[in-house]
Amino acid sequence: VRQGFPEVVFAPGKTPEQIAAIAERIVGADHALLVTRTDRAGYDAVAARIPDAIFNPVARTITRSAGQVAPGRGPIVVAAAGTADLPVAEEAAICAEIMGNAVDRIYDVGVAGLHRLLAEHARLLSARVIIVVAGMEGALPSVVGGLVEAPVIAVPTSVGYGASFGGMAALLGMLNSCASGVAVVNIDNGFGAAAIASAINHLA
Amino acid sequence: VRQGFPEVVFAPGKTPEQIAAIAERIVGADHALLVTRTDRAGYDAVAARIPDAIFNPVARTITRSAGQVAPGRGPIVVAAAGTADLPVAEEAAICAEIMGNAVDRIYDVGVAGLHRLLAEHARLLSARVIIVVAGMEGALPSVVGGLVEAPVIAVPTSVGYGASFGGMAALLGMLNSCASGVAVVNIDNGFGAAAIASAINHLA
Amino acid sequence: VRQGFPEVVFAPGKTPEQIAAIAERIVGADHALLVTRTDRAGYDAVAARIPDAIFNPVARTITRSAGQVAPGRGPIVVAAAGTADLPVAEEAAICAEIMGNAVDRIYDVGVAGLHRLLAEHARLLSARVIIVVAGMEGALPSVVGGLVEAPVIAVPTSVGYGASFGGMAALLGMLNSCASGVAVVNIDNGFGAAAIASAINHLA
Amino acid sequence: VRQGFPEVVFAPGKTPEQIAAIAERIVGADHALLVTRTDRAGYDAVAARIPDAIFNPVARTITRSAGQVAPGRGPIVVAAAGTADLPVAEEAAICAEIMGNAVDRIYDVGVAGLHRLLAEHARLLSARVIIVVAGMEGALPSVVGGLVEAPVIAVPTSVGYGASFGGMAALLGMLNSCASGVAVVNIDNGFGAAAIASAINHLA
Amino acid sequence: VRQGFPEVVFAPGKTPEQIAAIAERIVGADHALLVTRTDRAGYDAVAARIPDAIFNPVARTITRSAGQVAPGRGPIVVAAAGTADLPVAEEAAICAEIMGNAVDRIYDVGVAGLHRLLAEHARLLSARVIIVVAGMEGALPSVVGGLVEAPVIAVPTSVGYGASFGGMAALLGMLNSCASGVAVVNIDNGFGAAAIASAINHLA
Amino acid sequence: VRQGFPEVVFAPGKTPEQIAAIAERIVGADHALLVTRTDRAGYDAVAARIPDAIFNPVARTITRSAGQVAPGRGPIVVAAAGTADLPVAEEAAICAEIMGNAVDRIYDVGVAGLHRLLAEHARLLSARVIIVVAGMEGALPSVVGGLVEAPVIAVPTSVGYGASFGGMAALLGMLNSCASGVAVVNIDNGFGAAAIASAINHLA
Amino acid sequence: VRQGFPEVVFAPGKTPEQIAAIAERIVGADHALLVTRTDRAGYDAVAARIPDAIFNPVARTITRSAGQVAPGRGPIVVAAAGTADLPVAEEAAICAEIMGNAVDRIYDVGVAGLHRLLAEHARLLSARVIIVVAGMEGALPSVVGGLVEAPVIAVPTSVGYGASFGGMAALLGMLNSCASGVAVVNIDNGFGAAAIASAINHLA
Amino acid sequence: VRQGFPEVVFAPGKTPEQIAAIAERIVGADHALLVTRTDRAGYDAVAARIPDAIFNPVARTITRSAGQVAPGRGPIVVAAAGTADLPVAEEAAICAEIMGNAVDRIYDVGVAGLHRLLAEHARLLSARVIIVVAGMEGALPSVVGGLVEAPVIAVPTSVGYGASFGGMAALLGMLNSCASGVAVVNIDNGFGAAAIASAINHLA
Repeated sequence: VRQGFPEVVFAPGKTPEQIAAIAERIVGADHALLVTRTDRAGYDAVAARIPDAIFNPVARTITRSAGQVAPGRGPIVVAAAGTADLPVAEEAAICAEIMGNAVDRIYDVGVAGLHRLLAEHARLLSARVIIVVAGMEGALPSVVGGLVEAPVIAVPTSVGYGASFGGMAALLGMLNSCASGVAVVNIDNGFGAAAIASAINHLA
Repeated sequence: VRQGFPEVVFAPGKTPEQIAAIAERIVGADHALLVTRTDRAGYDAVAARIPDAIFNPVARTITRSAGQVAPGRGPIVVAAAGTADLPVAEEAAICAEIMGNAVDRIYDVGVAGLHRLLAEHARLLSARVIIVVAGMEGALPSVVGGLVEAPVIAVPTSVGYGASFGGMAALLGMLNSCASGVAVVNIDNGFGAAAIASAINHLA
Repeated sequence: VRQGFPEVVFAPGKTPEQIAAIAERIVGADHALLVTRTDRAGYDAVAARIPDAIFNPVARTITRSAGQVAPGRGPIVVAAAGTADLPVAEEAAICAEIMGNAVDRIYDVGVAGLHRLLAEHARLLSARVIIVVAGMEGALPSVVGGLVEAPVIAVPTSVGYGASFGGMAALLGMLNSCASGVAVVNIDNGFGAAAIASAINHLA
Repeated sequence: VRQGFPEVVFAPGKTPEQIAAIAERIVGADHALLVTRTDRAGYDAVAARIPDAIFNPVARTITRSAGQVAPGRGPIVVAAAGTADLPVAEEAAICAEIMGNAVDRIYDVGVAGLHRLLAEHARLLSARVIIVVAGMEGALPSVVGGLVEAPVIAVPTSVGYGASFGGMAALLGMLNSCASGVAVVNIDNGFGAAAIASAINHLA
Repeated sequence: VRQGFPEVVFAPGKTPEQIAAIAERIVGADHALLVTRTDRAGYDAVAARIPDAIFNPVARTITRSAGQVAPGRGPIVVAAAGTADLPVAEEAAICAEIMGNAVDRIYDVGVAGLHRLLAEHARLLSARVIIVVAGMEGALPSVVGGLVEAPVIAVPTSVGYGASFGGMAALLGMLNSCASGVAVVNIDNGFGAAAIASAINHLA
Repeated sequence: VRQGFPEVVFAPGKTPEQIAAIAERIVGADHALLVTRTDRAGYDAVAARIPDAIFNPVARTITRSAGQVAPGRGPIVVAAAGTADLPVAEEAAICAEIMGNAVDRIYDVGVAGLHRLLAEHARLLSARVIIVVAGMEGALPSVVGGLVEAPVIAVPTSVGYGASFGGMAALLGMLNSCASGVAVVNIDNGFGAAAIASAINHLA
Repeated sequence: VRQGFPEVVFAPGKTPEQIAAIAERIVGADHALLVTRTDRAGYDAVAARIPDAIFNPVARTITRSAGQVAPGRGPIVVAAAGTADLPVAEEAAICAEIMGNAVDRIYDVGVAGLHRLLAEHARLLSARVIIVVAGMEGALPSVVGGLVEAPVIAVPTSVGYGASFGGMAALLGMLNSCASGVAVVNIDNGFGAAAIASAINHLA
Repeated sequence: VRQGFPEVVFAPGKTPEQIAAIAERIVGADHALLVTRTDRAGYDAVAARIPDAIFNPVARTITRSAGQVAPGRGPIVVAAAGTADLPVAEEAAICAEIMGNAVDRIYDVGVAGLHRLLAEHARLLSARVIIVVAGMEGALPSVVGGLVEAPVIAVPTSVGYGASFGGMAALLGMLNSCASGVAVVNIDNGFGAAAIASAINHLA
């Protein structure tokens, strides 16, 4: 584990008390803390022991920095299509931040309204890595990939209904994307996207 | 069957001789002829009986007009993403033409190279109905649907490999499209797209 | 956005208060309002700010017209097979109405009792566009498509059990339909069916 | 095995010589012979030993009766939608005949052209059991089931393309059918349909 | 509708009050009543209007006979593998009874304990039609089909976990069964099995 | 690698010459040789270098023993349902033999004809481990598992058609089996079944 | 049933009272008791009648030994990757213990942190049979299988999200494993893994 | 297009003559050439016009450099599990090389034989980006990801049989991987992996 890099606690299947105990051990070892997929009950248990832990209810994260984390070299853009994709996009953004990266959020940009996306072309070009989060707009990473030279990490989300099949439609669309420079992580895996984006952004 | 509207022969599972016999009966009844999913052997058998039948090897169609067909009211645009999608796109185009519609083909436009698509915005806007054919670029109908007010008929193709699953990825992507004004026909079904597009284009 | 055409709010994932705030902004801009997939709590929040908003508990919509909407050219028939399909059928019907179309509802017609469907042949023939909504009777659009020349928009529903797979069986049945003139939208997507049907019905 | 009831040889995976050897043993034991899913090469090998064996190239069967088979009590109707479904329909018909049943074939009836089906209502009503074979028209058994009181055995076929998924779409459509009195056998299993239809038709 | 044959109300999606109103209309018309997939609340509403309606909490049915129903010709055996399959098995049994058939229940027989099944061979042989209900033991219909000459209607159930996929594993197993004389209805469709079994059992 | 245990060459994707070269190296190192999924061309290339290599055209194996292999403790029974399952069954049997086990083959036993299976009860009881190979009869391992106390390794095969889905139906049926004492290997993986069966049979 | 081997009660679908009644009958017959997939309510009902029954809330089991059970010959290792996999791992462990086996638990070992797994190599080598339980780390059985000669029983779990598809991803990964000596049981089936592991471990 | 970056021709669906014509145009414009998924016939047609084009029959590529390509900053490791994965691994390697990257190939390393992989730890650590190619060993990227800090691009291959489902099993396994720092491209998409790896490796 790199200096300052967080230890990660995946909350599902753990009680608030278990989460708090693990968190206390991590902070006691002077490591940065990152709890993902948690909720207010998890936060309350953690806050009772670690008052300066920070809860983000949209991202469903608890974080607490520790010492110096090596800074990423450039900004990471997190782009998302719909409001329903924000929990995953924010998970990616918060995780990338605790890993030492500057994050530029570009939300509410979709392929059915191209002008909003094209209006942000300059910000997209300024990114060293781009994370694209989308459920019903599985084409977004492909469109973004065609606009930039930076590597693009695509995150399908389970948002949608009918033939979205819990994110499978978005996942398949992203894998079949024709734009080169795009790779994909698991459905809803904002943390995983942040992890590889940060690894890329910390390359010397 | 409307005056001039073709009788359709779906070739798979029929021998060249069977196709030719059906075709001869259709032409003898003074109906327009449309054979789909055929090949040169099918055409040779038909041409021996109907010398002025026309074969399109890309669209895999045999056609012969008959009398006056009611003209569609405006142009139908057929847009396609990749060269591998052309057989389905041409099937749609040829079928739409024999049904009495003027067809404007816009090929080689994809979401990973938006500028080529945006450069054709005027032609897209001039269409009364748009057929969008795509395999690896399942997002194309959604992008087109965001650029126009005309109804869009999307045709997923079985082009692709890996996780394209014989067109299933494109089909799901099109169904989950966020653009309103888009509906979908079966994978590779260029004829079906032409049939509903023509029905729309012939509405008084 | 065309004059009078509604701005659409997709309710899932939004709190009643968020829905009400967006609705107030839309109505304040003098646009027509359409909220889909909402419930009574959503309506109560909206009604506190927009007393003349109309709630349809079956369609799960909140609507409020604004100024003149261009009228569609002919009636849109919405046909549905079973009572369990009514929420989707009503979503299609209410959406089509707020978009300026006259809607003729033909409910409780199924392929297993053909006489009820055949008794409505005249109403089907009078439609400019037909929306067919069905879950367990995936064959209904195909049968209807064989009875008319108008374009048919098919909406599979997630109604059913066992091997219905959340509407997948109906979706596949509709895509494989032999009748020409049929296209399909996403499972349960009554709004999407209304959007393309209205686009067709507003063609000059 | 009932007197006169055939012994069945499923040809795939067996050489012509193996088929012929088994057939010779069956005929030598004075049993009726039924080979399914065979081809001309299989027949040539059998005919060299059993000159009066009968080959049906559409049904892909070799048959030879033996002694008296108990006759079924009424006619079995075999109905099929498209010409591509005929191999499965004929397999069902030939198998039912060798099992002692009178078979009435009603072919080229589909749900997209209801009048042809309704014109055969009397023949459908005269059946003691009905076998309905369909690939792209998965709704046909449901429509037939609504027109009669007799039990209906549905056979999905692998005919189709795109989202037909080798007969899965037809299978799912048939299972979700709303008509009561319908049950389903495996995709392309004309023999299996004949077997249960014959069992029903031989009930005292 | 045959004399005495029930009118069927499929309860899901209907309120108790709606069920009761439909039931009252059916009974008022002197028809037999069959409500499926209901619960105690549905029964309470019905019983307030039709005091002699009968509720079966395992089968989840409400029934009330009316006049004479034509009797089936022989017993229908309903066989089931596990206790978790009993709701579907009882639905089949109750439905078959209200349709005029004598029902013989053989429960707790599975392929992993063959002796219990073989001990009931005589009862199986006495049946005119057999309904086999199984979730985790998809092989049961095949085994039963090998023991009798009567037609077998197989009902896969959604009982199971892991790779049972909501009954899909049982459904596929039953369709691939090697025993002839077996056909399948939809997952959990006890009513549908009773309907075709009764149709068979009422054949003259 | 244990003394005498074969080195395994999986032939698909390798040229006959490549197979022969690897085989020569293995034999030169005085190891036992096992080539799986090969054909006569592969054997001819191997035999040119290793004249005493043995080809089994049904099992599609090439084998050559080397020195002493530790003998398994008891017989391994390989049971198979249909003739089409024999290539996989023989692959399992030959592999088990070259690994030092005595193999007892029980073929042509299926659940639809229980008497043939029950007639072999004594041989099944004599086995230390049982491998059950089946495609269309996915229930066979469950039935066998109910008859013995020995561990059962089930091998689904891709034999079948229609809804067998390349062995998936058999695989799911075997996984959902109610009999305890059964575990499963990959579809058509006769070698894998032999490997774990041999590991069990060599336990001290 | 072997002396001391438990009778198993699968709790889902049974009321606490039903479970307790069955348990009382089993214990009254002097058999060992094993209830799986139960909860505290089930235990409370059992404990009211059988005070010395033991509840394991993680494994979700109720157990009570009875007389002498034949001891397994060596230790069974139960290895698990993540904390979320513990309920299934503990079900396997508790079931193996009540069947007479010594169990050695190795938890929190995953392929992404190989050193923890390699540090336990000696304990893995000491096992006579190994059960490997994993959801998100479907590769664990393959890695373990490469480190030992003992037979490995793999248990996929439904732990995970996104493209884990309820354990299907883990199941497929385990089936495609390249390590020989691995077989698989149903998703989450800790009991089934224990049953075959114990059968192997009791081989003379 | 960056200076020296190749123009890519995806060969499937194009005739050798078409490929050669496109290649001639690319080389005439002084661009680097990369043809993927081609064969000797494609190469012969290209070589007739471009004698110094290079054919790699394993990678199925035709390449020809042009001027200076910006060099990647560090080595890209391409790791592959089995010999059957080599075509995809070589496609990735050749593509990465023509894009200006130094490539270090580590082949024949799998999770079932960990020692071979661990023996290459130093080479893995020296990579700036790692491409891991695997079909039957879907766990390999996860294991590699746990050994390094560099970003890992995983490429599932369609190698395998039975429940590998054309690479789907490997794809799902890679997506569910617990190691952070791993992202995935489409099945068999060696080119896509090279494209994003090169984009990462060219970051300033």
